Amino acid sequence: MNHPSHVVSGITGLVANRCFNFSAGPAMLPQDVMLRMQEEFLHYQQCGASVMEISHRGETFMALAEKAEHDLRALMDVPDDYAVIFSHGGATHQAAFLALNLTAPTDKAGYVINGHWSDKAHKQAVPYCDAQVLDNTVDIDYQDIRLDVFERLDPSLAYVHITSNETIHGVQYQQAPQTGDVPLIADMCSDILSRPLDVRDYGMIYAGAQKNIGSAGLSIAIIRRDLLERQPRPIADVLNYAKQAERDSMVNTPPTHGWYVAGKVFEWLREQGGVKAMHEINQRKAKQLYETIDCSGGFYRNHIATHVRSIMNVPFQLPNQTLTDLFLAQAAEHGMVGLKGHRAVGGVRASIYNAMPESGVVCLRDFMKTFQQTHG
Amino acid sequence: MNHPSHVVSGITGLVANRCFNFSAGPAMLPQDVMLRMQEEFLHYQQCGASVMEISHRGETFMALAEKAEHDLRALMDVPDDYAVIFSHGGATHQAAFLALNLTAPTDKAGYVINGHWSDKAHKQAVPYCDAQVLDNTVDIDYQDIRLDVFERLDPSLAYVHITSNETIHGVQYQQAPQTGDVPLIADMCSDILSRPLDVRDYGMIYAGAQKNIGSAGLSIAIIRRDLLERQPRPIADVLNYAKQAERDSMVNTPPTHGWYVAGKVFEWLREQGGVKAMHEINQRKAKQLYETIDCSGGFYRNHIATHVRSIMNVPFQLPNQTLTDLFLAQAAEHGMVGLKGHRAVGGVRASIYNAMPESGVVCLRDFMKTFQQTHG
Repeated sequence: MNHPSHVVSGITGLVANRCFNFSAGPAMLPQDVMLRMQEEFLHYQQCGASVMEISHRGETFMALAEKAEHDLRALMDVPDDYAVIFSHGGATHQAAFLALNLTAPTDKAGYVINGHWSDKAHKQAVPYCDAQVLDNTVDIDYQDIRLDVFERLDPSLAYVHITSNETIHGVQYQQAPQTGDVPLIADMCSDILSRPLDVRDYGMIYAGAQKNIGSAGLSIAIIRRDLLERQPRPIADVLNYAKQAERDSMVNTPPTHGWYVAGKVFEWLREQGGVKAMHEINQRKAKQLYETIDCSGGFYRNHIATHVRSIMNVPFQLPNQTLTDLFLAQAAEHGMVGLKGHRAVGGVRASIYNAMPESGVVCLRDFMKTFQQTHG
Repeated sequence: MNHPSHVVSGITGLVANRCFNFSAGPAMLPQDVMLRMQEEFLHYQQCGASVMEISHRGETFMALAEKAEHDLRALMDVPDDYAVIFSHGGATHQAAFLALNLTAPTDKAGYVINGHWSDKAHKQAVPYCDAQVLDNTVDIDYQDIRLDVFERLDPSLAYVHITSNETIHGVQYQQAPQTGDVPLIADMCSDILSRPLDVRDYGMIYAGAQKNIGSAGLSIAIIRRDLLERQPRPIADVLNYAKQAERDSMVNTPPTHGWYVAGKVFEWLREQGGVKAMHEINQRKAKQLYETIDCSGGFYRNHIATHVRSIMNVPFQLPNQTLTDLFLAQAAEHGMVGLKGHRAVGGVRASIYNAMPESGVVCLRDFMKTFQQTHG
């Protein structure tokens, strides 16, 4: 067996050469998970090969796959009448697949747009159904969420779609909007597993893995089983949610390595105390940064209405581009990377998903204060 | 930097605890590639994070992505008028996507069925066009390939589809059938990069990565650009080949880790001398096993017509199930795993893709001879 010995810094808790990675996604993975995966990288559980090299139909992988689903169901308390699909593709694929699977061409589906990702999800559905925009907060620069749209839903909608957390602007639903008999579908790419929720509030939850679950190439769909009975149009087996659910996500070879990484993260989350414990940590992390912004006297600015500020993505602006560039460069020198804001809004963005330790946020907070003292 | 020291056996050339893995897919990866990936697992190229954790839009990943495409184009001599797409999903997804992208609902497309995988590809297209079976060799248990079907192709076909190597039965086209003006589409999951070919013989080549390219979750499509202009039906951007080609496979976050693994394998293939050199090795490997079968006096049996025997998958039968089980168990004790035949045909199957070294095949050949001497 190969047991690499790593130098772990007492100050940051990071293995040498690793930084606090604030990337919006693909994003930082828990360091403990990375170390465990490296250790078994060449041979997984005495099977003579790495986990990438073994059949998805063999006992070794099947056990891993079942445990990952079991752990996810436990973490999110997923009821038995919901299927869990470990799928190829990213969230944008799911945005297309869900329209294909849950609507007929003449069906109406409702989209509430609060930023880039809900807009992109809507665009994927347009070729397949009457995908109606029920609200679009672009008129207020996505700085708030309007909940009154959910009070006057057309009951004939096939579903209503939201993105629960918009990563670019840092705006987040604080809870599931009530949609009555219209199934609520939520793209939860950037906040799945970050806080407790009641799966029964949703008809379907989906997420790409590369923010809060694992690595890009896997996405997860949690779907109430009655929705799988819709079968509104002819569809290839491999794109068919009902077939994938029936075949335990193995209509074809699944993305085995992505499934493995997700399973490792789920194990780690359970060790940390589950979603409730993570939520407390995530709230503390976000509070540190928002307080620093709000107490900066306008040196750092965030324009999102305080009651819908994201606890996963904290974007902020500095007084000018020169200072922004300097901030990003000096942060990198201090071991903090991935902080550049999305090109649509510029500035700085700290993505602080589950894998970002509190020590990383403290490091950033202290740097923000020092930077302001020097340049404010 | 962490430099793990590995014990490599002088007899097999394998790192301790690793076996010769004859799995049909997900399959063995080159050991050198595995070692290089393990070494940089925690931090990739001084970027402070692993390759799984970095943005696909950052310089580090973009350079990796471009080099991988460059190396693949060099290995296969892909002309400029062919797009290369690094896609989410497996080959079965591509089988659905290609019908969605290249046919209108009333179009006819031709499928030649020589085994399980070409049959599955056909099934994915049935919901989307008039997917006609031009020939099906099930009547001869898939033991030969009939080429005359290509001599009488309906010129109005949108394309004709083949699977160039059928892994379960071990039957392989020796060269591209001539299809005139009808674009030939080949599922090359199990023999891409194993031998030289002329890309211009094909309208499209596609392959899931987990046999001869890398790990499951990535598939590659090589498509003649004029076919991308068809746009026969409304289709979500993320499923649209033309959009993916236009956006360098980044309509959404690509399967970054899978792309990275593929790039490592392409580098390794170039170091080995490219596809021509691999073909010579692959021919020698296959010959060792087929000669052992053919010289066994019927103890080992393979029923495929000799001129279409696969050089990638060598399936064979033993006299009875008891001997088969004993063979598989003893082979595993000798460090050879993944040899169980597909459940549809039983017996033994040695998958000997590029990553399987000649020493692994020699090991299996010697074991086959000894086993026959003891039990024949």
